[in-house]
Amino acid sequence: MKLSARNQLPGKVKAIDVGVVTAEVVIALDGGGELTAVITKKSVENLGLTVGKKVYAVVKSTEVMVAID
Amino acid sequence: MKLSARNQLPGKVKAIDVGVVTAEVVIALDGGGELTAVITKKSVENLGLTVGKKVYAVVKSTEVMVAID
Amino acid sequence: MKLSARNQLPGKVKAIDVGVVTAEVVIALDGGGELTAVITKKSVENLGLTVGKKVYAVVKSTEVMVAID
Amino acid sequence: MKLSARNQLPGKVKAIDVGVVTAEVVIALDGGGELTAVITKKSVENLGLTVGKKVYAVVKSTEVMVAID
Amino acid sequence: MKLSARNQLPGKVKAIDVGVVTAEVVIALDGGGELTAVITKKSVENLGLTVGKKVYAVVKSTEVMVAID
Amino acid sequence: MKLSARNQLPGKVKAIDVGVVTAEVVIALDGGGELTAVITKKSVENLGLTVGKKVYAVVKSTEVMVAID
Repeated sequence: MKLSARNQLPGKVKAIDVGVVTAEVVIALDGGGELTAVITKKSVENLGLTVGKKVYAVVKSTEVMVAID
Repeated sequence: MKLSARNQLPGKVKAIDVGVVTAEVVIALDGGGELTAVITKKSVENLGLTVGKKVYAVVKSTEVMVAID
Repeated sequence: MKLSARNQLPGKVKAIDVGVVTAEVVIALDGGGELTAVITKKSVENLGLTVGKKVYAVVKSTEVMVAID
Repeated sequence: MKLSARNQLPGKVKAIDVGVVTAEVVIALDGGGELTAVITKKSVENLGLTVGKKVYAVVKSTEVMVAID
Repeated sequence: MKLSARNQLPGKVKAIDVGVVTAEVVIALDGGGELTAVITKKSVENLGLTVGKKVYAVVKSTEVMVAID
Repeated sequence: MKLSARNQLPGKVKAIDVGVVTAEVVIALDGGGELTAVITKKSVENLGLTVGKKVYAVVKSTEVMVAID
């Protein structure tokens, strides 16, 4: 599947914190830095996410903001 | 200002493409890779964004998806 | 690529309206009804979208609201 | 109330999974297929959502992505 | 229609800036302050939005961030 | 930090409801009315949010919808 969302950064799962409905997945980016994703617990199960697994953080461009110091 | 959005990746503006209402801002991340943001043209002006300017790409955690190969 | 976004509805592109930065893509769902997507013009080009092409409308669960009459 | 969000697909609640703050609502679309929504537990209560209830899945166009095989 | 999105603030349209695909609508809130919405041009037409019209700014709770000074 | 998100409304925290991963923060706006935010529990901790604390509700313009009666 090829997706319109243009932001796809490779990394590894660093931590997973599972709640009742949602889960927080911390991704250590290959280029350094981290991105935290909040997805459903079921998606964590469907993707078989575990700490250390290679993943992509994916973000739709309209969801990215820009900040300056 | 300190923001609840936990994803704040440093980079430099690589390209700006301005439309009538929105603008596309490509950010070259310091760690490698790019993130594209679609924000309003007025925000580009308010922040004084120009190519080469140091910025942060900011994303709310609920907007980040996870993908696997 | 397998994505955490659980909402992936099959359909065909019914119409594309291209602006300077963004584009509006109307998808006629196989099950009936339509979904309109606003994505970047570059994504329309990257995906080679044309009227009639088979696509999926993809939506992150946190972006879906529920309404009643 | 008439809403700017152009994507409003009719269906029936198929399942509700309630967490502490959020809840997952699976909607079986009248046209076939499903959409999963993550909304607050309070919205589930405010709308009186129960399995079988007729609802609409509502999505803002800027939140819809497009994918191809 | 009753919507799960819990944030519905009353106001009046203060300005509309129409692009090719999207439009920017500035809403002067009844309680003071402004909210800017980026919606499709077609939604502006469907809702018959004009300067001075009474409207509601509607935001899904998962889209609201919190900041401190 | 100065942010591209143009919607920043001042208020005070009225209530916080903490789940396992996410938390719901109700903000009483200075101009009247309320906005509810769903953010991560860790952001509540990072920002030191407590009832009565002065905050801003921040929303990206592409996340704001418009409704009419």
